[in-house]
Amino acid sequence: MKIDMLTLFPEMFSGPFDSSIIKRARDRGLLEISFTDIRDFSGNKHHTVDDTPYGGGAGMVMQAPPIMRALEHVCNQRGDAQARVILMCPTGLTFDQNWARDLAREEHLVIICGHYEGIDERVRELAVTDELSIGDYVLTGGELPAMVVVDAVARMIPGVLGEQASAEEDSFYHGLLEYPQYTRPRDCEDLSVPEILMSGHHEKIRLWRRRQALLKTLERRPDLLREEMLSSEDRDILREIVVSIQGVIEG
Amino acid sequence: MKIDMLTLFPEMFSGPFDSSIIKRARDRGLLEISFTDIRDFSGNKHHTVDDTPYGGGAGMVMQAPPIMRALEHVCNQRGDAQARVILMCPTGLTFDQNWARDLAREEHLVIICGHYEGIDERVRELAVTDELSIGDYVLTGGELPAMVVVDAVARMIPGVLGEQASAEEDSFYHGLLEYPQYTRPRDCEDLSVPEILMSGHHEKIRLWRRRQALLKTLERRPDLLREEMLSSEDRDILREIVVSIQGVIEG
Repeated sequence: MKIDMLTLFPEMFSGPFDSSIIKRARDRGLLEISFTDIRDFSGNKHHTVDDTPYGGGAGMVMQAPPIMRALEHVCNQRGDAQARVILMCPTGLTFDQNWARDLAREEHLVIICGHYEGIDERVRELAVTDELSIGDYVLTGGELPAMVVVDAVARMIPGVLGEQASAEEDSFYHGLLEYPQYTRPRDCEDLSVPEILMSGHHEKIRLWRRRQALLKTLERRPDLLREEMLSSEDRDILREIVVSIQGVIEG
Repeated sequence: MKIDMLTLFPEMFSGPFDSSIIKRARDRGLLEISFTDIRDFSGNKHHTVDDTPYGGGAGMVMQAPPIMRALEHVCNQRGDAQARVILMCPTGLTFDQNWARDLAREEHLVIICGHYEGIDERVRELAVTDELSIGDYVLTGGELPAMVVVDAVARMIPGVLGEQASAEEDSFYHGLLEYPQYTRPRDCEDLSVPEILMSGHHEKIRLWRRRQALLKTLERRPDLLREEMLSSEDRDILREIVVSIQGVIEG
């Protein structure tokens, strides 16, 4: 996969993109990321790329022409007029794991990182295919959101993760929050590892973990639990939980 | 505000934390960020900090003792036994702008970045005060989420943003998505700036923007629109929209 990042701050990406899974994907040639500094396409000698908003108001707005020129440049370079052009902005649709899976199938992504108070609306109308937000909070620019998207997408490209099992067991992959994990030492301060995990009884451990995952999801993110994703085993576990709650209520 | 970041990859933070608003906040002394490498507290000469999960399964789990020792170290250093200890993990509560405002009032935050398949559950039980997730997607580690949280929180610390107006007009601050922005040039390819923005009529511009913000929110994030946050002016605008829709329906 090829990703062209259009940004005013290419230097921001150095730490995150030179570490961890993204570095591994780049080193293996599974992911190629290029940075284009929008400022290089300002078209003026002061390299300004923003201006005050029409109609007044605080802050500065990123101008359309430098972004359009940068976009044309990267699409010409790749010989790709059909690239998916993603704008990271707070008014976008909320990025989630389904988006990550979907974008991982593309061959070429262009990501535009917004900044200042916003970006001239005409960039959206002329060039953007998808507007994405990573959550309901205000950030300084689109760079951190772009890094988050690239990390989530890179993990879904076949061959990037060492063990596919790892990706598949991760939280959200099966729609539930993850069960609690324990590792050595057996005792930490006054807390021990639950006995069942040391029983060696694989089937009981599997059921215990599924029950824990269901309970954690019920507790923290009941919005994630939808009927259609529950297996008949899940239903049995939930019925058993109901019975034990009723036992407590009725003494 | 002081932030202690506990991580296995301190080098990941160099780009994002040396740019933009976070750099400005650090330069002005409004934000002090220290990095503690959990590996320095491994307690073994190979500096390993992870091990296989009890009960089996793919991947590695971060051990509790190195994290507990790193935590004790930073709290001793600051003379602060009461710090808020945040764990970035996919099973956490979803971080949003209310969380950003809340955390911006703290004097000292400790942020633990999870990694590998997870973190020994006992760290949560013994030390963590808040578990946070930045969205419903799987990431490689807690570092990018920690950067997102610090950026959102830093913006809410008084004095960090040049113009307070800027922060207040940003998306989500008033609960609606932002209205479209336009700046020079007046014409871009075949698109012009909406006439009203060049009318000089401030009151009409304000109403147009509010209407656009309401329409964009209705279109993309109707979940954000709640009755209690609508002003009587908003209700008037929405009624007027209903009338114009009815006009279209009834020809």
